[in-house]
Amino acid sequence: MSSTFGTLYRVTTFGESHCYGVGGVVDGCPPGLALTEADIQPQLTRRRPGQSAISTPRKEEDQVMILSGTEQGITLGTPIGLLVKNKDQRPGDYKEMSQIPRPSHADYTYQMKYGVRASSGGGRSSARETIGRVAAGAIAEKFLKETFGVEIVAWVSAVGELQAADLSAAPPSREQVDQTIIRCPDPEMAPKMEEAITAAREEGDSMGGVVTCVCRNVPAGLGEPVFEKLEAYLAQAMMSLPATKGFEIGSGFSGAAMRGSRHNDPFVRKEHGLGTATNFSGGIQGGISNGEPIVFRVAFKPPATISKVQHTTTFDGKPVDLAAAGRHDPCVVNRAIPIVETMAAIVLADLTLRQRARRPDSLPSR
Amino acid sequence: MSSTFGTLYRVTTFGESHCYGVGGVVDGCPPGLALTEADIQPQLTRRRPGQSAISTPRKEEDQVMILSGTEQGITLGTPIGLLVKNKDQRPGDYKEMSQIPRPSHADYTYQMKYGVRASSGGGRSSARETIGRVAAGAIAEKFLKETFGVEIVAWVSAVGELQAADLSAAPPSREQVDQTIIRCPDPEMAPKMEEAITAAREEGDSMGGVVTCVCRNVPAGLGEPVFEKLEAYLAQAMMSLPATKGFEIGSGFSGAAMRGSRHNDPFVRKEHGLGTATNFSGGIQGGISNGEPIVFRVAFKPPATISKVQHTTTFDGKPVDLAAAGRHDPCVVNRAIPIVETMAAIVLADLTLRQRARRPDSLPSR
Amino acid sequence: MSSTFGTLYRVTTFGESHCYGVGGVVDGCPPGLALTEADIQPQLTRRRPGQSAISTPRKEEDQVMILSGTEQGITLGTPIGLLVKNKDQRPGDYKEMSQIPRPSHADYTYQMKYGVRASSGGGRSSARETIGRVAAGAIAEKFLKETFGVEIVAWVSAVGELQAADLSAAPPSREQVDQTIIRCPDPEMAPKMEEAITAAREEGDSMGGVVTCVCRNVPAGLGEPVFEKLEAYLAQAMMSLPATKGFEIGSGFSGAAMRGSRHNDPFVRKEHGLGTATNFSGGIQGGISNGEPIVFRVAFKPPATISKVQHTTTFDGKPVDLAAAGRHDPCVVNRAIPIVETMAAIVLADLTLRQRARRPDSLPSR
Amino acid sequence: MSSTFGTLYRVTTFGESHCYGVGGVVDGCPPGLALTEADIQPQLTRRRPGQSAISTPRKEEDQVMILSGTEQGITLGTPIGLLVKNKDQRPGDYKEMSQIPRPSHADYTYQMKYGVRASSGGGRSSARETIGRVAAGAIAEKFLKETFGVEIVAWVSAVGELQAADLSAAPPSREQVDQTIIRCPDPEMAPKMEEAITAAREEGDSMGGVVTCVCRNVPAGLGEPVFEKLEAYLAQAMMSLPATKGFEIGSGFSGAAMRGSRHNDPFVRKEHGLGTATNFSGGIQGGISNGEPIVFRVAFKPPATISKVQHTTTFDGKPVDLAAAGRHDPCVVNRAIPIVETMAAIVLADLTLRQRARRPDSLPSR
Repeated sequence: MSSTFGTLYRVTTFGESHCYGVGGVVDGCPPGLALTEADIQPQLTRRRPGQSAISTPRKEEDQVMILSGTEQGITLGTPIGLLVKNKDQRPGDYKEMSQIPRPSHADYTYQMKYGVRASSGGGRSSARETIGRVAAGAIAEKFLKETFGVEIVAWVSAVGELQAADLSAAPPSREQVDQTIIRCPDPEMAPKMEEAITAAREEGDSMGGVVTCVCRNVPAGLGEPVFEKLEAYLAQAMMSLPATKGFEIGSGFSGAAMRGSRHNDPFVRKEHGLGTATNFSGGIQGGISNGEPIVFRVAFKPPATISKVQHTTTFDGKPVDLAAAGRHDPCVVNRAIPIVETMAAIVLADLTLRQRARRPDSLPSR
Repeated sequence: MSSTFGTLYRVTTFGESHCYGVGGVVDGCPPGLALTEADIQPQLTRRRPGQSAISTPRKEEDQVMILSGTEQGITLGTPIGLLVKNKDQRPGDYKEMSQIPRPSHADYTYQMKYGVRASSGGGRSSARETIGRVAAGAIAEKFLKETFGVEIVAWVSAVGELQAADLSAAPPSREQVDQTIIRCPDPEMAPKMEEAITAAREEGDSMGGVVTCVCRNVPAGLGEPVFEKLEAYLAQAMMSLPATKGFEIGSGFSGAAMRGSRHNDPFVRKEHGLGTATNFSGGIQGGISNGEPIVFRVAFKPPATISKVQHTTTFDGKPVDLAAAGRHDPCVVNRAIPIVETMAAIVLADLTLRQRARRPDSLPSR
Repeated sequence: MSSTFGTLYRVTTFGESHCYGVGGVVDGCPPGLALTEADIQPQLTRRRPGQSAISTPRKEEDQVMILSGTEQGITLGTPIGLLVKNKDQRPGDYKEMSQIPRPSHADYTYQMKYGVRASSGGGRSSARETIGRVAAGAIAEKFLKETFGVEIVAWVSAVGELQAADLSAAPPSREQVDQTIIRCPDPEMAPKMEEAITAAREEGDSMGGVVTCVCRNVPAGLGEPVFEKLEAYLAQAMMSLPATKGFEIGSGFSGAAMRGSRHNDPFVRKEHGLGTATNFSGGIQGGISNGEPIVFRVAFKPPATISKVQHTTTFDGKPVDLAAAGRHDPCVVNRAIPIVETMAAIVLADLTLRQRARRPDSLPSR
Repeated sequence: MSSTFGTLYRVTTFGESHCYGVGGVVDGCPPGLALTEADIQPQLTRRRPGQSAISTPRKEEDQVMILSGTEQGITLGTPIGLLVKNKDQRPGDYKEMSQIPRPSHADYTYQMKYGVRASSGGGRSSARETIGRVAAGAIAEKFLKETFGVEIVAWVSAVGELQAADLSAAPPSREQVDQTIIRCPDPEMAPKMEEAITAAREEGDSMGGVVTCVCRNVPAGLGEPVFEKLEAYLAQAMMSLPATKGFEIGSGFSGAAMRGSRHNDPFVRKEHGLGTATNFSGGIQGGISNGEPIVFRVAFKPPATISKVQHTTTFDGKPVDLAAAGRHDPCVVNRAIPIVETMAAIVLADLTLRQRARRPDSLPSR
């Protein structure tokens, strides 16, 4: 199932950097949903490189085409084929690297796994692969929003050692997130982050960061014990993104330092039933959503491709100095925002359908 | 697939706290492996409660029985049925809680999901469910050890705010881990951790902690792009364990604060091919193992069941003070050690078989 | 997924002839269903050998035990563990065969596949494996009956060259089917079939036959295009039974000889919507149920184990004369009845849950 | 998994008759296989309509494009995206039918299932959906041929009541099959079949038929007990094709009429190990290939769309006379040949990879 994700809302992606195109197939999207390319494009556009000085300067339009599964703007319930053509192919840039596996890149491991690799190195480990996910997840977002009013928003909460204020209890809107190029809604921290990234780029270096995501109006009851607990499923989804190094739900690692009397979320009566006074659980108990906002964080490492000289070896083990010539992002967290949001949507859409199969009456009626 | 995990090495578990028994089925274990209950029991015994003053005093023997799949101590390649009977059933303890969903426990979410729940609350969210995994994973460990010499060891690296020294570059043996009840191989920190847990228990409280796990001698080439990258698959496995709040591979969240020039792992020539000088990647690049040790950390929250009074509500939303009467662990991280190890083994066994399908010659011959 | 079947109603089976026991795990059975062993046992008892002169004389009680997943007679929505112990183990009977692969049995192919095999030969190819399916399917039958009033009945429609009258348009009840040992509700043909089987047994020979099955009150809309069309899924289910050689839906092979003007089922208005005047389609169009009865047939070969002398070879290719000494059925079709019924139930239960996920309103309310 | 098939060699298809295009994604194709469009096109061309007087006159070029997964004519081991554009879209033809569900077509069941349907009726039930399968299966064929020398050939063995001579023991070549438009290699019967189809077409009627397929050089050991026995998997594959009504392996329904002493296939020494003197088993015992040719038959009903007047009803149940105006095939069995062959190849490729995972040494070395 390596390139397929989900049980009932099922996404299959394909494509490398320098082939004809990248895309995916969504199987299991409910019929009768209004859907055109215009519903999908915004998140793809947010993901697109070349938007600013802190991103890679490649010009790719990334226009999505719906190949199948809709008629007159309505989903048929059949597989939705999605395609984005690759336009800006410049394999030459990578040529000189061919004998040198880039440190912390997938060149070496793809060669070991497949015995062959794309000219661009670890082709499917490329950020370009995420286009299929974003397109598929944008459809899931629409389904969730129209069915339950689910709101998913992610933002950059750290770049390097710069930590934004914790906004998870009162999340910003997407518009607020997009007000800065770095997509950090902390107005004090955003310019500092952008400066730090610019400085790193000028030194031929790169920076990591953290993305925080909150999903609101998620019905209670989602998540499949045992192996597809909601947090386990989200963790898989997020850790399958390129360059991720960590995942936290609710209190995360800081929760490990607490005592139970502090960490437990006591119940309180809320408008639509029981809620909790605090949310260290991150909206999930026993692997199942409890109706509170789902809050998680994802750590992204600094991109591996840097122009600073690195002392490494060739595939044959000969010492060599490597300085990457190609275009590359000094930081990816801002572009990761729509990817994190849409992957979360795929997880929630799949679990929604599965709970509906089990007990349709347990979910709010549309 | 909620209670099934894996594609080729496939584990299905069953069982709640107060039914006849818990167990599982392993489908896909290669034939010809020497296997008896004696190979499985040690990890189950390490997982067993009632081992010390800092664990729950329940007496359960947890003796595993192989129901099928072997003959004369050899696996047949057919499904291996595994059963551990429940012996110490005392449902009465939980009776008084029946109208009160325990804070941060799964009582409420199971009720919302299923419309019914076991007398023990969120039955499948119980730690007892992990017995099936441990038994199944102990078999995976044996397969990996005999095939490639894979060594998996986990230990407690933090309890509350007490952090052990970082031993991931030179991991302890299982014997060393087991020398203290808390299973922390840092001789200075272990007694402090045990004291802290005892203190918490005396106050009717509980503590969280962190488990670090290292897997050595893992062949390069394991991990299935895109959605079953090795770190994604491990993250799912670990975050599917009860009480987990976070997962890190390699540098984890601290990697997000680094620059690429520091975080990249340059290649160096090693005995059996290329290796890396540092291991911020945690043994994985582009979702595929690179032959270096796989290093990950898992955060566990403090157990939700505490005897300290909690101000919460009944299912109906009426305010109530709750003080748990039943037996419970003040800290679970030491018992989590064999669970983390065996789950890692299941992931690696499954990915090994999948890589063998793709390119048998890419793996070391046995 | 070799020993797992189904996506949402998911059955995993385990067990060989001479191990501790056989059974299975049902994952995904909806919560809140009344269920005890008494609901499962009848179909197991119908499947049991040793019921008559035309069946194998082995005495096995085949009492099922529910290991998990229910409390106080109600399903919890968690995995239902099922176990039937093996009581009558006589491996000695098979000893002499160990160097001779029995013709048309699985001894040879299991050896080639696994490099090892159970003392009973192709262990998982044994009819005893079906116990787990029957137990799992009996639960599916109960779910379907209580939810939609689905009625599934199968009977023996041919033994050797003896063809019963076609009763598919007005199927018998299970009671009527069970009135004869051969389970053929054609009163004229049943005794002839029994005589023929007795004659074959006396000659140390065996006989094949055909089972017809009809499922009524199946809601329209079940079946998942493309690869899990209802007839494809049923075909897989039935052809996965030991000794099956053919599957037909509706008109089957005879439909291939018709013209479209004869074979097409024109629509007519019926009580609850549209129906069809004829049913050559067997209740399925385009892979999806149309509300008419689902009608299919399954061909079973004569059992491979016969006591008549066979000229064959040893594993080493040395010519040898083989005469089986063990106990064996001269004909299996009557015992196959509950197996066919319960496998059909598993297919329909799984597809019901999947359609409920897609469009809950498309199914009749319970 | 409705539009996904296979575990390790995994095919996902998409597309309806009148959308942008149809195609599929192959995930799991081994790396290092030489592959260009030229390897795939021949089977697509054989499948193409408009080839003769007995087929539909639609002109579609059906040129396949590889979207991803190869570089410089070599597979990368990553998903292979496949696309065939729809060129000849004439939705108007179907317009008048919109209120009348065509008898034995999927219009009614798609409407019941999805609550919406494509203008072409049951879009995914269309023969055009099979394009994705054929393209995916042509790649599987190449893999199997190059790895083991597997030869798969199918032909028309019956049209209506016209039965060709049984050629399964000495199958024709594809060239021989293609010598007649009807693809029946029985030179006496082929012209009669073509005449019969022409006669049916002139009467506005349609005809069914039977396809026989033989797969040679299939290694022993393929097939996954229990639920993915080789014959069960093939049955699912074939019964998932549009218009199929029956499946037989080896002796099929005629085997049900035999006695065991006749039906059993005794072992004999052959060049490369054990073989069988007869092949009533159809190359499979206990669900696992035995090295003998795999022989199966598939029954296809007469196409549902006929121009002869049919007395049926509208969706509302009003009686109406229907005469189809659109273009349609009077018989599909000749076009089904490459579809049957390629689906068989997908099944065998998937099972090959799974057996290689279990015991690489059990398969012939390449």
